Amino acid sequence: MSQSLDAIFRPKSVAVIGASTRKGTLGREVFDKLLDTDFNGPIYPVNPNAQYIHSVKAYATLRDIPSQVDLGVIVVPKQFVLNVVQEAADSGVKGLVVITAGFKETGKEGARIEAEMVRILKANRMRMVGPNCMGVINTEADVRLDTTFAPTVPLAGNIALASQSGALGQTILEHAHELNLGISMFVSVGNKADISGNDLLEYWRDEKSIDVILMYLESFGNPERFVQLAKEVSRQKPIVVVKSGRTSSGARAASSHTGALAGTDRAYDALFRQSGIARADSIKDMFDFAMAFASVPLPQGNRVAIISNAGGPGIMAADACENNGLLVVDLSDETRSALREALVPDASVMNPVDLLAGARPREFQTALDLVLRDQNVDAAIVIFVAPIITNPIEVALEIAKVTHSFEKPVLGCFMGVRGVAKGIEELHKWRIPAYPFPESAARSLAAMVDYSDWLNSPKGEIKKFSVDKETARGIIEAAVATGESHLSSSRCQKILAAYGIPLVTAREGKCVDDLIEGSLNFPVVLKCSGQTVVHKSELGAVRLNIQSVEELKQAYEQICASLKRHKISRESVTFFVQPMLRHGREVVIGLSRTDDLGALVMFGSGGVYVEVLQDVAFRIAPLTNVDAEQMISEIRGYPILAGVRGEKSVAMDLITDVLLRVSQLSVDLPQIRELDLNPFLLFPDKEKCAAVDVRIRIAGKQPLH
Amino acid sequence: MSQSLDAIFRPKSVAVIGASTRKGTLGREVFDKLLDTDFNGPIYPVNPNAQYIHSVKAYATLRDIPSQVDLGVIVVPKQFVLNVVQEAADSGVKGLVVITAGFKETGKEGARIEAEMVRILKANRMRMVGPNCMGVINTEADVRLDTTFAPTVPLAGNIALASQSGALGQTILEHAHELNLGISMFVSVGNKADISGNDLLEYWRDEKSIDVILMYLESFGNPERFVQLAKEVSRQKPIVVVKSGRTSSGARAASSHTGALAGTDRAYDALFRQSGIARADSIKDMFDFAMAFASVPLPQGNRVAIISNAGGPGIMAADACENNGLLVVDLSDETRSALREALVPDASVMNPVDLLAGARPREFQTALDLVLRDQNVDAAIVIFVAPIITNPIEVALEIAKVTHSFEKPVLGCFMGVRGVAKGIEELHKWRIPAYPFPESAARSLAAMVDYSDWLNSPKGEIKKFSVDKETARGIIEAAVATGESHLSSSRCQKILAAYGIPLVTAREGKCVDDLIEGSLNFPVVLKCSGQTVVHKSELGAVRLNIQSVEELKQAYEQICASLKRHKISRESVTFFVQPMLRHGREVVIGLSRTDDLGALVMFGSGGVYVEVLQDVAFRIAPLTNVDAEQMISEIRGYPILAGVRGEKSVAMDLITDVLLRVSQLSVDLPQIRELDLNPFLLFPDKEKCAAVDVRIRIAGKQPLH
Repeated sequence: MSQSLDAIFRPKSVAVIGASTRKGTLGREVFDKLLDTDFNGPIYPVNPNAQYIHSVKAYATLRDIPSQVDLGVIVVPKQFVLNVVQEAADSGVKGLVVITAGFKETGKEGARIEAEMVRILKANRMRMVGPNCMGVINTEADVRLDTTFAPTVPLAGNIALASQSGALGQTILEHAHELNLGISMFVSVGNKADISGNDLLEYWRDEKSIDVILMYLESFGNPERFVQLAKEVSRQKPIVVVKSGRTSSGARAASSHTGALAGTDRAYDALFRQSGIARADSIKDMFDFAMAFASVPLPQGNRVAIISNAGGPGIMAADACENNGLLVVDLSDETRSALREALVPDASVMNPVDLLAGARPREFQTALDLVLRDQNVDAAIVIFVAPIITNPIEVALEIAKVTHSFEKPVLGCFMGVRGVAKGIEELHKWRIPAYPFPESAARSLAAMVDYSDWLNSPKGEIKKFSVDKETARGIIEAAVATGESHLSSSRCQKILAAYGIPLVTAREGKCVDDLIEGSLNFPVVLKCSGQTVVHKSELGAVRLNIQSVEELKQAYEQICASLKRHKISRESVTFFVQPMLRHGREVVIGLSRTDDLGALVMFGSGGVYVEVLQDVAFRIAPLTNVDAEQMISEIRGYPILAGVRGEKSVAMDLITDVLLRVSQLSVDLPQIRELDLNPFLLFPDKEKCAAVDVRIRIAGKQPLH
Repeated sequence: MSQSLDAIFRPKSVAVIGASTRKGTLGREVFDKLLDTDFNGPIYPVNPNAQYIHSVKAYATLRDIPSQVDLGVIVVPKQFVLNVVQEAADSGVKGLVVITAGFKETGKEGARIEAEMVRILKANRMRMVGPNCMGVINTEADVRLDTTFAPTVPLAGNIALASQSGALGQTILEHAHELNLGISMFVSVGNKADISGNDLLEYWRDEKSIDVILMYLESFGNPERFVQLAKEVSRQKPIVVVKSGRTSSGARAASSHTGALAGTDRAYDALFRQSGIARADSIKDMFDFAMAFASVPLPQGNRVAIISNAGGPGIMAADACENNGLLVVDLSDETRSALREALVPDASVMNPVDLLAGARPREFQTALDLVLRDQNVDAAIVIFVAPIITNPIEVALEIAKVTHSFEKPVLGCFMGVRGVAKGIEELHKWRIPAYPFPESAARSLAAMVDYSDWLNSPKGEIKKFSVDKETARGIIEAAVATGESHLSSSRCQKILAAYGIPLVTAREGKCVDDLIEGSLNFPVVLKCSGQTVVHKSELGAVRLNIQSVEELKQAYEQICASLKRHKISRESVTFFVQPMLRHGREVVIGLSRTDDLGALVMFGSGGVYVEVLQDVAFRIAPLTNVDAEQMISEIRGYPILAGVRGEKSVAMDLITDVLLRVSQLSVDLPQIRELDLNPFLLFPDKEKCAAVDVRIRIAGKQPLH
């Protein structure tokens, strides 16, 4: 469907329905902006009460326009919008930008009208941006489309930008302009009734004029599709995202603002990391990153050289680099002696290279050339602090000259206010990113390194295990039918068995006699479970290291006594005896499905540390083998799994395998809302690894989103 | 000594030694700046080759000046500096600002000359800023002193500022000016040969005109004194610090730049937290914080209300608040209904309050008034995103009016570029902090909340335990005399006993027969230690849960075999038998003394998690009881100590007690470089808690700093 977005972005003619004769109204501002920015085609104002608007002949309705209209921009009051949409459909209009607000964002009635609009669109193969949006911009020389009422006219360039907030859209355009960043296309997506971020990603993926995609997001329509698309697009060009509504109160605000539910922030981090997306923490960072991505080549590693004409800022840059995962590398002996030769005797030729305050443009040039030649160096940050004597424009020119003769990124940092602005402008003119603070340069370079690493990492594949899907599906459908939300232990066991996920075998029983039948392999563990038993250890409902039948009977009596104290009937619970696994390393493996993000697979340090330290990693299903491997190595407790102080590593392959099977399970059976394998015990021997306990919650009879 | 800094900051007369007739030279720039900024007293240029400089009669030497000179500003070439300092002393000059560079920062010879300068100063009761600095500024109306060569003339105001980087000093002054922040005094401290950050803190503490102190630091001269002073000063006024050289490469740069050694970054965090200092991550944050501290009252809690005329920025502010430890609080029902009444129907009256894009200045006023009246709200952030129709200056005025009728802080965030600058200026005029991004407002408010919490927390006291200091000192001095660096186990035990720090009693022996003499309380642990045994567990040199003499003998033989395999002679090690403590919770307690930061007491999660998760907290000794309590609750593993899932809490008092005793030990016996109590086992019963293993390293014969 993406090709049809040309109707929005590259119309041959535009009508402004609701154009007004009164200056200062939205209807007039939108019309004037289109006219002022010299749209390359006819613009028809539509207004039943006007003969002409801003000297252009007006039409009473869309139907009265004698020629083809490609794009309709709707600014009429909300009660007329639905009629206008129908009229547009009848008149053969291909695309709509609905600026008028007052639909889904205001409640049920608005949502109903919005749904009706979409119905008309689908029936007539039309596409729409909005409603409740600020419009679209395409700066291409042969299009020159700007339907926004923003006072800023963006510079032409190679950056595409989508904003889910109209108000912020304007601020965003202004900041881009401030930084001399050129915009190719801009969209304020509004309520996303038709065209969503996913459509834009797909459209922009193939646009040769677009080198970087920026998005300000508050919610996802279809997270699985977003991940899949973003992964594809990220292979072509970098995507930088600001996702707001990160934290609990942010999420609360988001849900009243856009009707979207937010998941936890770490899940979003996972989603972005998985998709190769650079996540920015603020609008400011988004542009800082964009400036780097849009202008200089990607670094091939994280080793950075810093050149400065002042010690302090050099140190601050070094700090910021290391804090962002960059390596302030040792320069080679050769580079150091060449620098020693070229610079004044007091200069420091360690990294950061300190040229001292007297440094002339020529010394910046020489030093930058030498460090970029160094095989140890992947990128450089050049810091200029304005002293009285050196001209920042000349310094910028020398930096530009050297930068363009290497395939390594150089980021400038020109500190100070007076005069320095001209140096920054000069760098921008030569397409070299330049920042007023070293921290911004470091963060931007780090974002490039992360993206470059992602591009260079194997894509991985989504493995398909041969499993017994039908058995698992049957169990779950039966449970859904009876309205259960938590599956019984025995059914959980069967599902895991069907998907080849190892679980410690347990003998189940309602009383002690069931448990001691036949032979037992001591030591064993006795526990009980049931709907009424939530925290087993608080109830004393788990007894470890039982050595004999005698001890087992005692333990059984103790649990029963505890149940009684807690007023839990013995009949409501089931008892299990399991072999006791010793010296395993505990982890937790889990699955959680949310409306906002789809199925999230979790891996983390186990035992009491899951709750207290929350040392976990997430990925959106389906997982590739690379995703699974990254999750494992990402948790802080990884060294414990790999073996500390001479211990052997646990069977990492087995973990990958289980994570992928859980992922497959989540895709095959979306009714599963939560699955917990906690604890999952790991050993060096793959055969011994197994989940000790399993819990599965299903959607029950609630509708699936 | 601090009163004597008046000679630097409030001289009645100034001489510029090295003033030059040539424009563009430092000697001329410094002289001209003093003249241009209208210093309130005579300025004497000193230059043997000039009759006059900038129309002012010049003198060949300081001695030729017929009147008293209070302050000498030295800009002569470095080879003449020592002579000039002597001449200044002979002429009764009271203070010096030495701008000339080329001393300690360039190596040994420079350091020697610098030391000689200090000798002359001390002999003549003179004070000095520098050398290698950018000078000092005092904007007080009746002083008007500016010896810097910076092109910026700061606004007068209530902020004092010290910078350890000259180059950055200039940038710092420019940024302050940009933000309309007024500076009272400024010092570029240079090499700190005489006047250090500590002297300035002491001087500024008592200055009524100074409300906020800002420092850019690269190293500490005397960390213990800094902590003590900063704690005192922080009770009077907030201190905001940027400390660079945080990370390893930053520290490397710092050591080549200033000759100072850097400790780890977390230790610095501890130091600042302990002293009530707000640590800023960048120069930008430092000024953002300063703007808040210098203008609005401190919040009495962390509950913030957000008002915005656009949804997106409101969400971003909420995110930023929660990420910085602020609470985006639920507004009271009363406030919500009042807002509902006052605002347009579509406005959101949840927090963040969304006034919508059409909001007029009056609506900002009403909403801000209502949320500040709310008992649940401690502070407000007001966000204005410039739409076409509303005038930012009027919005700023309304905000100012409301703000000044409450004793709660209000921070403004005016987003956008065009026109918004005037709104920000207006807010600054009314002394209301205003930022271009919500993240800056949130971080600044969080810094205020932290400071307010610190002020409200009890000061705590440094407890003096009655200990057997003489015994401990005797052991250590004997070890120092013999050149040992690690104390033997038995001597470690004696030191702990002397300081009342509990240690599991161990029986020591060179062979198995020593160990099995008399009765043993099984189960026991057998281990061996010695200079050659570093990681006991890798060697298999710790055997747990030994149940009988027979098993003990076996374990002994196994260890001996392992030692043999690792080519460690049995004679070089000592064996220990200890009772085995079970079910204790492991922590680590430690002490480490560095030249840069003094004695650091450490507390953290124990066992393998110390190494892998580095879940530790630090404080600089001496510790107050409040410091100790905060350390304990600060670690991530704290809930494990407090008891999860029905477990009892360990004896917290006992931990506090041990931390304070370790602190006292570090103060009494500075020869101790490192002490490790690892593991230290904790139980609910205070009597059972004890260190299982102890290691003490002493300074040996190395000189102490």
